[in-house]
Amino acid sequence: MINTQYNKLKKQYLFSEIGKIIRSRHDVIDLSVGDVTLPLPTVVADAGRKAADEMSHVRSFRGYPPESGYDFFKKAIKDYYAARGTQICESEIFASDGIKSDMSVFLNLFSRGKALLPSPSYPAYIDANIIRGNEIEFYDKIPYGKKADIIIICSPDNPTGRAMSADELSEWVTFAKKAGAVILFDAAYEAFVRSGAPRSIFEIDGARECAVEFCSLSKTAGFTGIRCGYTIVPRECGLNDLWRRTKSCLSNGVSYISQRMAECALGAGYKDIAENIAYYSANADILCEALNGAEWQGGVDSPYIWLKCGDSYREFYKLIDMYGLGVTPGIGFGEEGREYVRINSFCSRENAVLAAERLKRYIFCK
Amino acid sequence: MINTQYNKLKKQYLFSEIGKIIRSRHDVIDLSVGDVTLPLPTVVADAGRKAADEMSHVRSFRGYPPESGYDFFKKAIKDYYAARGTQICESEIFASDGIKSDMSVFLNLFSRGKALLPSPSYPAYIDANIIRGNEIEFYDKIPYGKKADIIIICSPDNPTGRAMSADELSEWVTFAKKAGAVILFDAAYEAFVRSGAPRSIFEIDGARECAVEFCSLSKTAGFTGIRCGYTIVPRECGLNDLWRRTKSCLSNGVSYISQRMAECALGAGYKDIAENIAYYSANADILCEALNGAEWQGGVDSPYIWLKCGDSYREFYKLIDMYGLGVTPGIGFGEEGREYVRINSFCSRENAVLAAERLKRYIFCK
Repeated sequence: MINTQYNKLKKQYLFSEIGKIIRSRHDVIDLSVGDVTLPLPTVVADAGRKAADEMSHVRSFRGYPPESGYDFFKKAIKDYYAARGTQICESEIFASDGIKSDMSVFLNLFSRGKALLPSPSYPAYIDANIIRGNEIEFYDKIPYGKKADIIIICSPDNPTGRAMSADELSEWVTFAKKAGAVILFDAAYEAFVRSGAPRSIFEIDGARECAVEFCSLSKTAGFTGIRCGYTIVPRECGLNDLWRRTKSCLSNGVSYISQRMAECALGAGYKDIAENIAYYSANADILCEALNGAEWQGGVDSPYIWLKCGDSYREFYKLIDMYGLGVTPGIGFGEEGREYVRINSFCSRENAVLAAERLKRYIFCK
Repeated sequence: MINTQYNKLKKQYLFSEIGKIIRSRHDVIDLSVGDVTLPLPTVVADAGRKAADEMSHVRSFRGYPPESGYDFFKKAIKDYYAARGTQICESEIFASDGIKSDMSVFLNLFSRGKALLPSPSYPAYIDANIIRGNEIEFYDKIPYGKKADIIIICSPDNPTGRAMSADELSEWVTFAKKAGAVILFDAAYEAFVRSGAPRSIFEIDGARECAVEFCSLSKTAGFTGIRCGYTIVPRECGLNDLWRRTKSCLSNGVSYISQRMAECALGAGYKDIAENIAYYSANADILCEALNGAEWQGGVDSPYIWLKCGDSYREFYKLIDMYGLGVTPGIGFGEEGREYVRINSFCSRENAVLAAERLKRYIFCK
């Protein structure tokens, strides 16, 4: 019998649908799907070349990776956190091939129950919870007094680009404990934080008892094509052993080459990847400046700008057909996005400048 | 609430447990966990190096891979099947990072129901179905008259090393259709077939209407550390669109580098990987010869030999402590394995010869 939950899914996944429409047009600057465009630093690619080469020699060949990741990889993540004052133990770090897949597998740890999701929401959260059979309730602020099993928080947020403050996250931690819920914290955009907002839920007191953090090198280091991320499951949250057991039977680990490249990106390649983040952030500044007079948020701690503009599909088509700009209709992220579009800054400087001009005209003509 | 199904899992995953014991001993020839040992052919590593290098140049950089795999990868799989007379359409091929993970995600497509699993059984099948909440029934032959939702078949089989004949598989296809079940066919060891037994379920008439095939480059091309596999979901089985939708929201695809290496392994590197398979098969022949007088099966179409020897944990400890041989206790694969151990042939020729001598003594002293 087919899982009847599938009847509740939208026919197409948002980004598959939008991607098809945008690819069908010519001369469009694509600021829709949040995919990076800058090439990897040479030193990171070299680490990949070296790892591939090692695989062809008897002495350096590697078979199955440890299910939780290589020690060198876990050390790199640990050091990455320690450098900003957050202490994570290696045994709490698990390599993954990305947040989307790993979070959906992580849902297996819970009985079917109630999931609190942000509104608007990255659509993969919604789909994964529907498929799992969870009851979904959306929040725009902390729903005091409610019970829940899972709370998904994305900060800096996709799609709104907004980063939560330490106080806000602290309130969420208090709420989660009272609600008996586990926070699944998506830190995919942590490297973009410029305002001083927390980059990890584990900067918050008490979070280790009720939160799990999902992160990835996709946006941090331009690894969308390399597939390497990590999940942090603190001892105190009571799920560490369960997740280790799950990894052992539902995963065979992450590519050795990807893990070596990740190690390098957070080590010898760190200056270079930080420059790439700064490049995208400067793009965001250019795009934000063009929105003068409009209502928008994001762009400071995130590559995303969330622009209020009226019916999101109508404006999506207007932007693509009249201004040659591909964006993502906000309604794709849920009802709250009905009057918004999401604009990303993962483009070349040249395209950011060009897109800014087009946005200025668009705002002016509205 | 924690998924109560976890209470039904064994405390440790079989291979995690066995691995720990074997690593704690000295001078043991490890024929337990089925991991490859021969390095990758140079040409395959070179394809990986080239792909890593491409990632550091603007013009050849790649972001998110297509969720179902790159066209070049799907073409390589299609050609790999076509070369032995099995026609698969590109739109039926989905890249994965391995069978274990992909099959567990595939279970999402079904409501909780009844799963028929082989006895003995690769333990990841059991764990994935327990976690999913399926009712498990084990089969040693076709359970005529029964209803089921899922049937897992592994041929050549892990752990018994036995490959099913075309007639047997044909009966399974007929049975599956009557039972209203989908066959999840694990073809991980297809490249080891020497007897002429089918290497794909799609060699069987009618299979396209009721079967899905999971395969991986792990054993075919020594890719356990590279992580690249594929799943074939024929149009006729009615699950193709559902799986495509699932991949779009629960996965971000497979590493570009891994896919390029896979393309090469099945193309320019094919002669070399076939030589590696022949090497392991020759090891199996050497090990089988040593078992003269004992009761065993496998080794012909598979890297695995399934040896009947009495209480499997007692013999496991005897083999490791008295003979310096690491094997896998058959009971780890279920009740039917109580009197067996599994021996693999993924070792060096030198170790195969040495292990054969030790096995001879072991058999002689029994």
